[in-house]
Amino acid sequence: MIPQGSLNSEFSKFQRKLVTDFLAWQVAIVNEYKRPDQFVMQNFDLSWRNGSYAIQPDVDHFEACRPLDICGIDIYHKTQDDLDGVTIGLAGDLARSMKQDNYLVVETSAQSILNSALQKLHYPGQLRLQAYSHLASGANMVAYWPWHSIHNSAETYWKGILSHDLEPNPTYYEAKQIASEFKKFNEQLISLKKKNRIAIYFSNESLTALREFPFSYKIHYNDVLRQVYEILYKNNLECDFVDHTVKDLSAYKLIIVPPLYVAPDEELERLNTFVRQGGSILYYFKSGFCNEHVQVRPKRMPAVLREACGFSYQQFTNFDRMSLKENPFSVEQEHNYVSIWGELLVPETATVLASYDHPHWGDYAAITQNRSGKGCVTYFGSLPSSAIIREVILDCAEKAGIDPPARKYAFPVIVRSGTNKAGKKLYYIFNYSPQEQCIPYHFDGGKELFSEREITKGDSLRIGAWDVKIMVE
Amino acid sequence: MIPQGSLNSEFSKFQRKLVTDFLAWQVAIVNEYKRPDQFVMQNFDLSWRNGSYAIQPDVDHFEACRPLDICGIDIYHKTQDDLDGVTIGLAGDLARSMKQDNYLVVETSAQSILNSALQKLHYPGQLRLQAYSHLASGANMVAYWPWHSIHNSAETYWKGILSHDLEPNPTYYEAKQIASEFKKFNEQLISLKKKNRIAIYFSNESLTALREFPFSYKIHYNDVLRQVYEILYKNNLECDFVDHTVKDLSAYKLIIVPPLYVAPDEELERLNTFVRQGGSILYYFKSGFCNEHVQVRPKRMPAVLREACGFSYQQFTNFDRMSLKENPFSVEQEHNYVSIWGELLVPETATVLASYDHPHWGDYAAITQNRSGKGCVTYFGSLPSSAIIREVILDCAEKAGIDPPARKYAFPVIVRSGTNKAGKKLYYIFNYSPQEQCIPYHFDGGKELFSEREITKGDSLRIGAWDVKIMVE
Amino acid sequence: MIPQGSLNSEFSKFQRKLVTDFLAWQVAIVNEYKRPDQFVMQNFDLSWRNGSYAIQPDVDHFEACRPLDICGIDIYHKTQDDLDGVTIGLAGDLARSMKQDNYLVVETSAQSILNSALQKLHYPGQLRLQAYSHLASGANMVAYWPWHSIHNSAETYWKGILSHDLEPNPTYYEAKQIASEFKKFNEQLISLKKKNRIAIYFSNESLTALREFPFSYKIHYNDVLRQVYEILYKNNLECDFVDHTVKDLSAYKLIIVPPLYVAPDEELERLNTFVRQGGSILYYFKSGFCNEHVQVRPKRMPAVLREACGFSYQQFTNFDRMSLKENPFSVEQEHNYVSIWGELLVPETATVLASYDHPHWGDYAAITQNRSGKGCVTYFGSLPSSAIIREVILDCAEKAGIDPPARKYAFPVIVRSGTNKAGKKLYYIFNYSPQEQCIPYHFDGGKELFSEREITKGDSLRIGAWDVKIMVE
Repeated sequence: MIPQGSLNSEFSKFQRKLVTDFLAWQVAIVNEYKRPDQFVMQNFDLSWRNGSYAIQPDVDHFEACRPLDICGIDIYHKTQDDLDGVTIGLAGDLARSMKQDNYLVVETSAQSILNSALQKLHYPGQLRLQAYSHLASGANMVAYWPWHSIHNSAETYWKGILSHDLEPNPTYYEAKQIASEFKKFNEQLISLKKKNRIAIYFSNESLTALREFPFSYKIHYNDVLRQVYEILYKNNLECDFVDHTVKDLSAYKLIIVPPLYVAPDEELERLNTFVRQGGSILYYFKSGFCNEHVQVRPKRMPAVLREACGFSYQQFTNFDRMSLKENPFSVEQEHNYVSIWGELLVPETATVLASYDHPHWGDYAAITQNRSGKGCVTYFGSLPSSAIIREVILDCAEKAGIDPPARKYAFPVIVRSGTNKAGKKLYYIFNYSPQEQCIPYHFDGGKELFSEREITKGDSLRIGAWDVKIMVE
Repeated sequence: MIPQGSLNSEFSKFQRKLVTDFLAWQVAIVNEYKRPDQFVMQNFDLSWRNGSYAIQPDVDHFEACRPLDICGIDIYHKTQDDLDGVTIGLAGDLARSMKQDNYLVVETSAQSILNSALQKLHYPGQLRLQAYSHLASGANMVAYWPWHSIHNSAETYWKGILSHDLEPNPTYYEAKQIASEFKKFNEQLISLKKKNRIAIYFSNESLTALREFPFSYKIHYNDVLRQVYEILYKNNLECDFVDHTVKDLSAYKLIIVPPLYVAPDEELERLNTFVRQGGSILYYFKSGFCNEHVQVRPKRMPAVLREACGFSYQQFTNFDRMSLKENPFSVEQEHNYVSIWGELLVPETATVLASYDHPHWGDYAAITQNRSGKGCVTYFGSLPSSAIIREVILDCAEKAGIDPPARKYAFPVIVRSGTNKAGKKLYYIFNYSPQEQCIPYHFDGGKELFSEREITKGDSLRIGAWDVKIMVE
Repeated sequence: MIPQGSLNSEFSKFQRKLVTDFLAWQVAIVNEYKRPDQFVMQNFDLSWRNGSYAIQPDVDHFEACRPLDICGIDIYHKTQDDLDGVTIGLAGDLARSMKQDNYLVVETSAQSILNSALQKLHYPGQLRLQAYSHLASGANMVAYWPWHSIHNSAETYWKGILSHDLEPNPTYYEAKQIASEFKKFNEQLISLKKKNRIAIYFSNESLTALREFPFSYKIHYNDVLRQVYEILYKNNLECDFVDHTVKDLSAYKLIIVPPLYVAPDEELERLNTFVRQGGSILYYFKSGFCNEHVQVRPKRMPAVLREACGFSYQQFTNFDRMSLKENPFSVEQEHNYVSIWGELLVPETATVLASYDHPHWGDYAAITQNRSGKGCVTYFGSLPSSAIIREVILDCAEKAGIDPPARKYAFPVIVRSGTNKAGKKLYYIFNYSPQEQCIPYHFDGGKELFSEREITKGDSLRIGAWDVKIMVE
């Protein structure tokens, strides 16, 4: 008998299984007939919220993707002054993680999307910047939708490479340049491989259960996850995505876990083991609260995670904002806060990283850190400001031994890297801003792809507005 | 034939009668089987708006309660920094008025209520402050819902005395202290009796008709009624509630009547008689406008009340805010206004207390006062600011001879009083604030219940944050 | 086969045809039985948005009105401090244009309208000001709804000339004065005729298609049209309304065309011919975009209008606000902007009146002007501020030879004129404000109707708050 409160959550799980089974069945049929040189692909789409992508609650991407030969994905995102590459990165990293392989961008915006009141024509140069951003995440194709704008349909204003006049236009000429560069540099750019040490651990079960039992009406699971991704991305720490289907986590040094509200004991034990064996985990509040049936564990929280976390709690409260005592992360005073949800943590073996600055809750911890076996668990009992999350993540990464040279840059300079087919290291260096950037070159020497100029460590590098340099070792 | 505009209002009346009849039928059945030492009770619930209680439009509490032995009620309210006791007082005074007797609080909040995004854990001390506030209104029981938090249900986050871990916690320990004090002081505290001189006269017929014909989209009947109650409560003037079923009003000196939009002639005549015999009434705008069928009276307004009110009006208008000429109640300039609705009152025998400060309506009165027989009628033709309502109510009370020593205190110091079973006068003195209060003692000498300290008039009394002193004569 | 995107638009067209056909059928039946001295009339109602009238998407007023003898219309509008006469003028000009003849105001507000929370009693004098405003647009009747306020209905608060008390009141006395003046001056005032040189060209097809494909979620077709009307009205430039059924446009010198998003080739060619023969047109963005099936033309835009406009464009974008380079219309800096929608115009033969002040779109034109044959086309590629629209319209009017003496006044002094049955020129001079106005008299001499005072050019004229003077040549 499924209890009332978790009913919708169970329905979601069932619905996702229907999708997984249906796709597997379809792929099996196609596999009977396809030629050896053909492949089966599915055009996946992520969850669209406020013009941004995150985890899709209606499909288990990882499981659904298994029978397919190649992962395909649609990537639509904000543009003009709001273009920052976050969604391209997130959707790309997620698509690459699905089959731990390269993927195809099956649809992306040509001129503008959505509808007639939300037209946002890309600025000159942005189409090309976006195309290389896809490649830098591991895409092996960038396809636009549609070729020409449609004259009479629901998608009349989902504008194509061509306008309704079917004549060449500035967008067409920019697409033409992209195509000719892709052709020229294909061998160096195709099939970029990455080996990331950080993973974001997501949970569709938690996402859908937290729609029934939200910790806030304004900030949802996907907002928390996107915020984590954006902080990693803007500080040039590349990551993979994993979920409960990834049993072997040993490739990672640091795993960041947005509210893991729903998980069976064995899943939590696997994470405990990862830590004991030397891994580092950053958990968000509410992790460990419910079992796989969205039943609250009848234990002092965080139940199965209690020993690894080194604290327990019995009570919690919602609030708007609260300061932390003594600005423990030395952020600007206006950023020294937590918000929305607060667990009243009572440390057992954990070190208190931050306490609530409140007349009644001041004795409780808000953020803790605990050694467990050879590893370390950091825990957010409340939702910190972006500035604090950044400090904690950078600290966790550094302690986990993750401190690549790319970390010396930060948004709007975005660095994405990997190894090409020839085994050469590639660095994409993007300028996501309308101002030219002049930066020191922190990597070992290499050749800039477009200019064929040799660059050595310490040289300075100029990148124009909305432009990109690609360095080959 | 029921005309269109009042149809929903007639439906509401019919619906309420169904509830009344059903409850009476059920009680009659139980009465056939119950033992002599058993009683029949119903768990009444008030109307919930913005986290606050007021008159329930779907049940005629006074009539429905008649066949029951004891009145039971659920009382949920705001807490943490928003805890002011207003809802505890209002719901308690209403419950006590239903059977003019003591009542049981069948449900109230343990840790936190509603849902996972609106958790507001009571601050330490607040649970106890609330428990005594119930007793001070005449409650004979305080029961919490639920005992332990439920692990998998729609009410997972309607948190109990115990959390999901089923272990003792700070809330449990505070509840334990309350229970032990209740046990110790039971004889002095149980069955507190009150004899109030002020009544708020409510009308479910008016409330539901004004949902069809609102005077504002922002401020509704219950908002007006709650504002009246809050002003009385915060100025330590205790009151009963009455409606049209209370035929003998002679116990009261001052009756405050929120918009009595719907009432038959005989009901209005009864109020006219109350005044002629020496009573004081404060009417709100729109009183007397419609008969019991929500038919506007074809008379110069306020029709049946015209003589007692001493004015008439033919026209009215909505507006946002308007000043009153010459700040007639000497409130701070920013509070010198009326809002929302304005009747253009033309005085006949009434004294003008306030006129509109407006180029076109300046000759009309906004607030009047009229002698009628031995009594007095004050009338709000518009909705005054809280500050003005306070001035008018305090003045009406004083003129009606109601000026108890408790009036010398004001919120956050709240005084509630009554007589216990031994015939002793009890004063509950509450501190609804996080700051300690040090106040002079204005009552005749007595003994403080918890400390057993003797206090005499003129002594000073300290009350801690969110704390209470109980004085026994 | 009707494509998806335009389906609702086709439905609207079909629906409007049903109304047209039904009315024609009904009129034909009545015509068989009515006496020679009787006439057939229909109570038309415009589209109500934010308390304001504009084009009715559900009825083709011009076509539906054809079989009727006289056009009747309901005119409700804002009042009190918001009374400006714009809606009276717009609805009146539209009603007069329907049959190019006088019309009847079949319903207008007596005391207040809508419902019990939105009562706005007219200020003293406003009822009379409104009555003469109707006459000044060509009305031959002003009727109020209802006579007395209704005691129990959905329209209880659609207040009549009498209140519910059925006694005389200030509104009644003002209506009585109006009636007696109308009776006295009937011969001079009845059947006022106008000969306007400016027309607003509206398109129900465009309005309904733009509901499917809006250029903004905040500003709609009718908002653009009302803004044009208001600017003409407040600057005392009188106008007619025309649509595609008016084949002969030669009476006009200047036609203003809100977004003509949908139109067949022959309709656009007719407008091109009007220009070539010496007319002046001001087009809004999106004009010429689709054919009569809401199919985007597969041509470089504005397609059929390209030669007359003297530019082409291929791309466009939405935005909030953008400045124009070098404040080309010398408006106050805060008004130097366009908003919402921007076409990237590439001039061919046109003169650039304004360019976007933007790093990426700065080379494109936003507003252009082009000679075509003997005439002139001005084009808004974006939505300018009201101040800029005013500058452009006044300039277009002046260049088209439209510069009447009334232009020397501006709101709140509103001048409406025409010729009465005796062939005399009449000037209604209104003061739409609570302040008395003292203005120089710019017209040839005449007699003021109410005072019978002779006024000559250069005299000064006083008009009281919310008052009117009527000058007869």
